[in-house]
Amino acid sequence: MNETIQHLLNHRSVRSYSDKPLSDEQIQGIVSSAQAAATSSFVQAYTIIGVKDPLKKDKLAELSGKQAYVSHNGHFFVFCLDLNRLAIASQIEKAAPEEINQTLASTETFMIGVIDTALAAQNAVVAAESMGLGICYIGGLRNQLEQVCEILKTPDRVIPLFGLSVGYPADGAEQKQRLPFDNVYHEDEYNQDKDQFINQLIQYNEEISSYYADRTSGKRKDRWTEMMTKLLKNPKRLFMKELLRKKGLPLE
Amino acid sequence: MNETIQHLLNHRSVRSYSDKPLSDEQIQGIVSSAQAAATSSFVQAYTIIGVKDPLKKDKLAELSGKQAYVSHNGHFFVFCLDLNRLAIASQIEKAAPEEINQTLASTETFMIGVIDTALAAQNAVVAAESMGLGICYIGGLRNQLEQVCEILKTPDRVIPLFGLSVGYPADGAEQKQRLPFDNVYHEDEYNQDKDQFINQLIQYNEEISSYYADRTSGKRKDRWTEMMTKLLKNPKRLFMKELLRKKGLPLE
Repeated sequence: MNETIQHLLNHRSVRSYSDKPLSDEQIQGIVSSAQAAATSSFVQAYTIIGVKDPLKKDKLAELSGKQAYVSHNGHFFVFCLDLNRLAIASQIEKAAPEEINQTLASTETFMIGVIDTALAAQNAVVAAESMGLGICYIGGLRNQLEQVCEILKTPDRVIPLFGLSVGYPADGAEQKQRLPFDNVYHEDEYNQDKDQFINQLIQYNEEISSYYADRTSGKRKDRWTEMMTKLLKNPKRLFMKELLRKKGLPLE
Repeated sequence: MNETIQHLLNHRSVRSYSDKPLSDEQIQGIVSSAQAAATSSFVQAYTIIGVKDPLKKDKLAELSGKQAYVSHNGHFFVFCLDLNRLAIASQIEKAAPEEINQTLASTETFMIGVIDTALAAQNAVVAAESMGLGICYIGGLRNQLEQVCEILKTPDRVIPLFGLSVGYPADGAEQKQRLPFDNVYHEDEYNQDKDQFINQLIQYNEEISSYYADRTSGKRKDRWTEMMTKLLKNPKRLFMKELLRKKGLPLE
């Protein structure tokens, strides 16, 4: 196993950082690595906003569910799906809006943008971790997304998808065991054996329960399926469809 | 600049491979690296299908727009968004469908699944490239997605998002210059200076035109904005919204 793979397998989310800011060279290395990721038909459908203004960082931390590590870190990135750039490209080419709007409005184009943005972000993460930095994705940035758009002054067709805190780790962070390999990786077709599939999840429940029990002197024993069911029973961010429509992405 | 970042910056899509198959150990390293990526609230909302059956690979190549490197490679992965596993988790916990359906049907949950899947895929890519292998993402897998679902026997709420060809590179591959750094990376807020934004794209057009001119003795001189406008004028995969609805993901 080579060093890069060791780094990947060693990933854990870091939620406590020293105050030391990233250097411009580090930021440049991280963003350039993000840009080097593959992109669908060369569209490069994302913009990365680096937030340095401490007031803005505090506001974003508040809006993300009071997560301190959104304001206290070495640097805070926001990864935005960006179809605005493509619209501007078509203006440069003198295309009329009605010639391009169907593509910009489609569910397929939205998927391309989300995938492009996430591929770039994960390259940024690998680059940051290879420098000895820690990271944490901030999905909570979508909790009050409209206000986040206002703070970052994103135009229509630009959607902040998630934040990324990066910095020098202050605390150790624990790694949680992933799903069983065979539950995630199937060969030639989706595993049709539902009993086997369920047994894998029950085996996984035991591993995850032990993980929590070990770390809380037995107070917490959450099963994975229990955690997932709680999530599913509490729908979140149900405004998303309407917000996307308002921002010019009706997902037709 | 460390070795990992050098690898990231050196990425290019490889579309021609030797016939040597990946070893089980390589596949395991790639999938385990994918699984090590961050995941929103620990949902791990993806399944990876490795396709070895040559007949299936040929069919997938045909459906993806006759891309030979879908059948001829060292291994072919299909990365699927998977909300079926979460539904099964809730069955294990005896939740009634009506308690969980709103979450499973939401645009937000779909976004979580797409992002989770793409983060995992990009880790797989980094792992594969660190082994000296080449890769190519296959978005064309969505061209005739319903038939791809049939071949892979994916249940409801599982959507193949893209393929990934991996293998030993047979040919050299070229790297295309990305958008200007300042066009993609903004500080504190989205760049409001539209003239500057447009000028960056025009400068980029010149770089891309030269790239093509150099490689075709001047026959091709495509501008980036021209390529993007062509894409936008030709809407693709407009069935996506309806297909997702049929597969249990109405994006509400």
